[in-house]
Amino acid sequence: MKLKIIGKKIKEIGLPPGTLVASGDGRTESVRITVIDYDEKNVQEKSIVNVEECFPFREKQSVTWINVDGVHDTGLIERIGSTYGIHSLSLEDIVNTSQRPKCEDYDTYLFIVLKMLTYDEAEKCTHIEQVSLLLGTNFVISFQEKEGDVFNAVRERIRNAKGRIRKMKADYLAYSLIDAIVDHYFLVLEKIGERVEVLEEALISDPKSETQHAIHTLKRETLLLRKSIWPLREVISILLRGESSLIHKSTGVYMRDVYDHTIQIIDTIETLRDMASGMLDLYLSNLSNKMNEVMKVLTIIATIFIPITFVAGVYGMNFEHMPELTWPWGYAGVWGIFISVVLVMIVYFKQKKWL
Amino acid sequence: MKLKIIGKKIKEIGLPPGTLVASGDGRTESVRITVIDYDEKNVQEKSIVNVEECFPFREKQSVTWINVDGVHDTGLIERIGSTYGIHSLSLEDIVNTSQRPKCEDYDTYLFIVLKMLTYDEAEKCTHIEQVSLLLGTNFVISFQEKEGDVFNAVRERIRNAKGRIRKMKADYLAYSLIDAIVDHYFLVLEKIGERVEVLEEALISDPKSETQHAIHTLKRETLLLRKSIWPLREVISILLRGESSLIHKSTGVYMRDVYDHTIQIIDTIETLRDMASGMLDLYLSNLSNKMNEVMKVLTIIATIFIPITFVAGVYGMNFEHMPELTWPWGYAGVWGIFISVVLVMIVYFKQKKWL
Amino acid sequence: MKLKIIGKKIKEIGLPPGTLVASGDGRTESVRITVIDYDEKNVQEKSIVNVEECFPFREKQSVTWINVDGVHDTGLIERIGSTYGIHSLSLEDIVNTSQRPKCEDYDTYLFIVLKMLTYDEAEKCTHIEQVSLLLGTNFVISFQEKEGDVFNAVRERIRNAKGRIRKMKADYLAYSLIDAIVDHYFLVLEKIGERVEVLEEALISDPKSETQHAIHTLKRETLLLRKSIWPLREVISILLRGESSLIHKSTGVYMRDVYDHTIQIIDTIETLRDMASGMLDLYLSNLSNKMNEVMKVLTIIATIFIPITFVAGVYGMNFEHMPELTWPWGYAGVWGIFISVVLVMIVYFKQKKWL
Amino acid sequence: MKLKIIGKKIKEIGLPPGTLVASGDGRTESVRITVIDYDEKNVQEKSIVNVEECFPFREKQSVTWINVDGVHDTGLIERIGSTYGIHSLSLEDIVNTSQRPKCEDYDTYLFIVLKMLTYDEAEKCTHIEQVSLLLGTNFVISFQEKEGDVFNAVRERIRNAKGRIRKMKADYLAYSLIDAIVDHYFLVLEKIGERVEVLEEALISDPKSETQHAIHTLKRETLLLRKSIWPLREVISILLRGESSLIHKSTGVYMRDVYDHTIQIIDTIETLRDMASGMLDLYLSNLSNKMNEVMKVLTIIATIFIPITFVAGVYGMNFEHMPELTWPWGYAGVWGIFISVVLVMIVYFKQKKWL
Amino acid sequence: MKLKIIGKKIKEIGLPPGTLVASGDGRTESVRITVIDYDEKNVQEKSIVNVEECFPFREKQSVTWINVDGVHDTGLIERIGSTYGIHSLSLEDIVNTSQRPKCEDYDTYLFIVLKMLTYDEAEKCTHIEQVSLLLGTNFVISFQEKEGDVFNAVRERIRNAKGRIRKMKADYLAYSLIDAIVDHYFLVLEKIGERVEVLEEALISDPKSETQHAIHTLKRETLLLRKSIWPLREVISILLRGESSLIHKSTGVYMRDVYDHTIQIIDTIETLRDMASGMLDLYLSNLSNKMNEVMKVLTIIATIFIPITFVAGVYGMNFEHMPELTWPWGYAGVWGIFISVVLVMIVYFKQKKWL
Repeated sequence: MKLKIIGKKIKEIGLPPGTLVASGDGRTESVRITVIDYDEKNVQEKSIVNVEECFPFREKQSVTWINVDGVHDTGLIERIGSTYGIHSLSLEDIVNTSQRPKCEDYDTYLFIVLKMLTYDEAEKCTHIEQVSLLLGTNFVISFQEKEGDVFNAVRERIRNAKGRIRKMKADYLAYSLIDAIVDHYFLVLEKIGERVEVLEEALISDPKSETQHAIHTLKRETLLLRKSIWPLREVISILLRGESSLIHKSTGVYMRDVYDHTIQIIDTIETLRDMASGMLDLYLSNLSNKMNEVMKVLTIIATIFIPITFVAGVYGMNFEHMPELTWPWGYAGVWGIFISVVLVMIVYFKQKKWL
Repeated sequence: MKLKIIGKKIKEIGLPPGTLVASGDGRTESVRITVIDYDEKNVQEKSIVNVEECFPFREKQSVTWINVDGVHDTGLIERIGSTYGIHSLSLEDIVNTSQRPKCEDYDTYLFIVLKMLTYDEAEKCTHIEQVSLLLGTNFVISFQEKEGDVFNAVRERIRNAKGRIRKMKADYLAYSLIDAIVDHYFLVLEKIGERVEVLEEALISDPKSETQHAIHTLKRETLLLRKSIWPLREVISILLRGESSLIHKSTGVYMRDVYDHTIQIIDTIETLRDMASGMLDLYLSNLSNKMNEVMKVLTIIATIFIPITFVAGVYGMNFEHMPELTWPWGYAGVWGIFISVVLVMIVYFKQKKWL
Repeated sequence: MKLKIIGKKIKEIGLPPGTLVASGDGRTESVRITVIDYDEKNVQEKSIVNVEECFPFREKQSVTWINVDGVHDTGLIERIGSTYGIHSLSLEDIVNTSQRPKCEDYDTYLFIVLKMLTYDEAEKCTHIEQVSLLLGTNFVISFQEKEGDVFNAVRERIRNAKGRIRKMKADYLAYSLIDAIVDHYFLVLEKIGERVEVLEEALISDPKSETQHAIHTLKRETLLLRKSIWPLREVISILLRGESSLIHKSTGVYMRDVYDHTIQIIDTIETLRDMASGMLDLYLSNLSNKMNEVMKVLTIIATIFIPITFVAGVYGMNFEHMPELTWPWGYAGVWGIFISVVLVMIVYFKQKKWL
Repeated sequence: MKLKIIGKKIKEIGLPPGTLVASGDGRTESVRITVIDYDEKNVQEKSIVNVEECFPFREKQSVTWINVDGVHDTGLIERIGSTYGIHSLSLEDIVNTSQRPKCEDYDTYLFIVLKMLTYDEAEKCTHIEQVSLLLGTNFVISFQEKEGDVFNAVRERIRNAKGRIRKMKADYLAYSLIDAIVDHYFLVLEKIGERVEVLEEALISDPKSETQHAIHTLKRETLLLRKSIWPLREVISILLRGESSLIHKSTGVYMRDVYDHTIQIIDTIETLRDMASGMLDLYLSNLSNKMNEVMKVLTIIATIFIPITFVAGVYGMNFEHMPELTWPWGYAGVWGIFISVVLVMIVYFKQKKWL
Repeated sequence: MKLKIIGKKIKEIGLPPGTLVASGDGRTESVRITVIDYDEKNVQEKSIVNVEECFPFREKQSVTWINVDGVHDTGLIERIGSTYGIHSLSLEDIVNTSQRPKCEDYDTYLFIVLKMLTYDEAEKCTHIEQVSLLLGTNFVISFQEKEGDVFNAVRERIRNAKGRIRKMKADYLAYSLIDAIVDHYFLVLEKIGERVEVLEEALISDPKSETQHAIHTLKRETLLLRKSIWPLREVISILLRGESSLIHKSTGVYMRDVYDHTIQIIDTIETLRDMASGMLDLYLSNLSNKMNEVMKVLTIIATIFIPITFVAGVYGMNFEHMPELTWPWGYAGVWGIFISVVLVMIVYFKQKKWL
């Protein structure tokens, strides 16, 4: 997972506020727009090519959900913006996909920016993508850069009238989308949680240099995830406070539910961070332990053999007058010295609890 | 004690909010329901099989406590819910046993989620279980997954009319249950406190690699306990603030008492965490100390014997012209050198305070 | 100083709230009660045996101070409680001496729990004891477990009408008692401050393993003291806010004074903690420094002698054809090698600044 | 990047408040003043020599932007101050370029101090400069010490009537200037972010002593940047709160945008700091790892060769009675011992996972 | 700089509140009192012996500044107190010079306690002294223990009617005194800042054991300075809030200026602390680096020479049957082995990047 640290792009600097500059790297894929329009009785779903096709829905009482995949076509974004009366600053933020999660109340609509996390089983990594939501009285417009999202379950519920979604207004639809995004955070955290457990076991059984790099990577990831998720708390708290007339009271209880989940996710991230710190401490003290053990082995060997090697060296000297050399028991006596020294050292080390 | 880090279950993701999905791993034990209905004069207690048996109590003025052991039977939970007018989001949270402790006011009832900690003397470990309470005007419904709880003392007090419980309303019963749960936290903390003391002694007398793992485990446990207990503060503070008409003013003073206990428990957990950190510091500096000692021994031995071994080596050389070898006092002189070197070194080490 | 980490006692768990259970370990000493009743003109002091003797004072306008040493006699506490209209939860907290400092307003009286610290010069340790105060319109009742307190100066002032105490009401008496307790904290902190200074000097002159244990003990003590004193801030802040009609406006200014002292004490404890942490850092880096020095000595000795020992070994070989052995200046040449190696090494170490 | 730690200059101490003392080190360059006066239809731009030339604009309804490069000419600053009714304390702060970012409301004007960061590609370093803004009903006066700023894009927009700047009032101009400054922070952070990535790679591939110094420098820079940027949050929050009548409601939404950017920048700085800390941890544990490896090599070599060197030493002794020396297979047997010892040691190290 | 950690003096404990006990160690120098009385037109300055001489000023409309050097004469303080209607608690705090900076509103006067820091160039150390200010409608009384203060510039401005001081009331005088004290903090911080820079350079060029003690001392000093300066923020914020009628609105803007300075000072202290921590980290990792280098030298020498010393030892054995000894090229062959081993080791170390 490679998360960007720096937000704003350099090429934007100096432009007047509200100028749309796509953050993408010169994408050329065509934009894909789907519209789902529903009320309690009917549901209509279509994939459109020309953005103007979805404008008639604006006048209808039914709830309209326009989903735009691909935000690099700034002309298209601007046309949607002018039809639905969206402020140019909002449009700028939709197009620039390195925003901080936020919720802004523009009276006639709410502008919500979120980060969508998806875990890619194939590549074993987490993708992060910006989702912008515009919530009006009877419409929700959602923007992402790439195709593929976490909203299929919501679409299914709309089509099959499962749950209460068809009976509720646009605010409930917005809630459902936010809830879908937040629910997927649990998936990503679970994957990280699994890695934590694998790492902990590796740490205790056989700590290696790679373990340490894995811990470092883990810490860094939680750091960056945290940056994505902390602001979410405030975003949902703004929705929850219900100051906007766009959020009906009956939806408030659901917002509280998603707020609870957010707090739970933040708790979990903090716990993961603390665990990563704890693992690093454990790794470092394991390292010290191993160093201690290595040093003990060296010291024991050296302390036993260096003195007796000296003794052997003494009797290797070539002095003419060395009476011990001619003693019949001289050689046996030297072995006695060797063995005594070794025994004394062993007793000493036992006493020091080094053996 | 194995606490889960991640809350929500994957299988729930994508379902409409308020869908009941049991977190249990396909449990099949039958659900056990007990009802205690009491007022100042009468008390009636029965264990029921069919959940409908307890519905008549709903209309009575007396306080009804329904205790449900086993929340995997979602059909049963739903029937209770519709009889007592419980919101589907509450029911979802009752069934999903990985909630964060919380207190939610649904006007006609309060929904309280707590974590019940019990210490299992046999297996020497702590069990953690979710308890959900529904507090209405004249009823309390409590839900747990497994049989066995910390409420027997409360039941006894109701049966024998001990204390004021029979004279009070449902809110006092809810308080009594919360108080029973919080009181048991002290037990668990006392066990951890005992381990801290054992560890501290082990640290000072003979620090080993296992000590460090024990400290790590301790830190981790306090981390996870903290996650369970910190939200409790806010839960009880909500009850204490008395904004709900379901909590009578006379019960407020008892809520303040249980709030005090919660603060005391949080204080204790923080202190335990700080102590665990302190112990890790102590362990690491003990390790450094021991390393220092090992190194000193090695250095002393090496520094004394390496030079004199060299001297012995010199006189082991086979040069034809080595005048010292033929001196009558040559051998004794060499021993003089040996002893001088050793003495000088010892004085040096004494001066350095290494000996 | 041995402070308890865990508050509530196990034997209490399960009892109805307000049940009195003495925390003491089956004490049997008799309870000692003293009564001081005074107004501006008269003062009456007596030591009583039977608690009922002090009840007549209740009806008098004069200020009555009842001091109870020994809270294990639950019957006595209950009788006082019912006479003075004390809530059973307050009585429970008086008897259980492991409360957190707190202040509770029961309308007709204020219930204040404090920790009294006394430094025992004889045993060189700090004693900690719980003091509970009940402040009513015309009475103050103080409870402790053991005889011996810090209130003698207050008694003296009442007897001799020193200061304004005889002119003021019961709230000023309560203030005087709290002030006496807080003043004694300075004493205890001064003792700890002295130890910090001794430790710092020891650290710089000759850091030993014991120094580290002393720092650890110090850190732990400040940790536990902190736990006793932090809540005090809030206690006095409640008294200061003057929401209770029992605290007269004229006493407010004195409360502010004792509040200032409390803040000063908390500041000092935090400073002591930071200093203890700083000392641990210093100790650890001293340790690393010493290790570095030890290693340098070893390396210098080994690096000088190992190569020349090798050279000596070479000429100790017994090959038949070793021309150097027969050279007339061979032996002198080897000494030349020895001295050159040593000189080169010394220059190298000088350059590395190891010598 | 060399940021000053200490703010106020010594030479000012003791002077009455509001005395203008230039912080510059005796600069002599002439001050450069440019005026841009514009409304929706006209724009007039001129570079003036005499400060009095710009005073006529004061009476006009159009927006006047006076930009002063060079604040060491205190006389000039004073004349501007008296014409526009600026408090002497504001003037003092304009002249003293070591202020903390702040926003002060003087009713008739707002006084805003900001830090302008510019990255100098040529010298590979960041320059920091103080920008002071005075915002009145129809004027903005900006002060800097050195020529060269980040406002060219704003000037361009005014000249070409790009965006809405020509239709808006002075408050929008002030916003545009602040926005330009804040936008340039992203540039500086991006440069630091690049260094972080380079460092991280260096850390993992080949950690050297220089890496550590680079991390230290990085930490220090983020520390000082943080000091410059944190107060900005409050500055813009004051502007955002819209308590001043000088900020029109329509500008509020733009202020919110720049506020968002500020939060994003603060987030990024905090993340960079955490990453720098993480890198230091990684560096230190890499160091420990390398030490461990070094020690293992030493220990393996020493543990294998010291014992067999001893054995060789034994048979180098010159005792007359050493039966082994005359055995025909003695020499081969000794080689057998050598090889056995080496094999045993290798098995031992394999088992310890040191090889 | 030796700052006291503990505040209250032991000898005071037990005395009634408001009792004056001088903290000084039995000083006997005479107290020195100077009075400056001024209004817009006149200024009168005199040094008085008898405190009663300054009482007539009390009735005059002009501003009276009484400066008392020496607070050990409790009788004098009491006489001033009773004339100006000062509460005995204020007097107690004036006399006890170990107060925490604070600001108390006694309706008829404000009582302000500050710490005055002065840097003594001669002794290269910082002196800290308590200054107490009493601010009434037409008087300011300032108390210090020792002669010599930072107020000379203020006196000069009064005498010469420089700035607006002569036109303003007593509150502006109090502001001027506070401002003078706060301004001198910059001086002290600048001195510490210089030491930080010297230390940083020493750290990078040649880290020694003394460097570490210097860092430790620095950290400790910032710790104690912080304790003196943090409360200042609140003190000035109280003055700034303007709740007291003694502070006129026109003085508020100056108070805001001094508040800004205080924040800047606190920022600087925090930065210095962080830098000191950073330096300690740098020192410790430098130490580890050096240890690593030492170990590498030892390991390289030992790993090269121990094996070849063994080989030399082998051919120093005295076995009768050692065919190699008689080979003509035996000796040359052994040298071949020696050189091969050394080359292999060098290649190995090169590959490990140890050389």
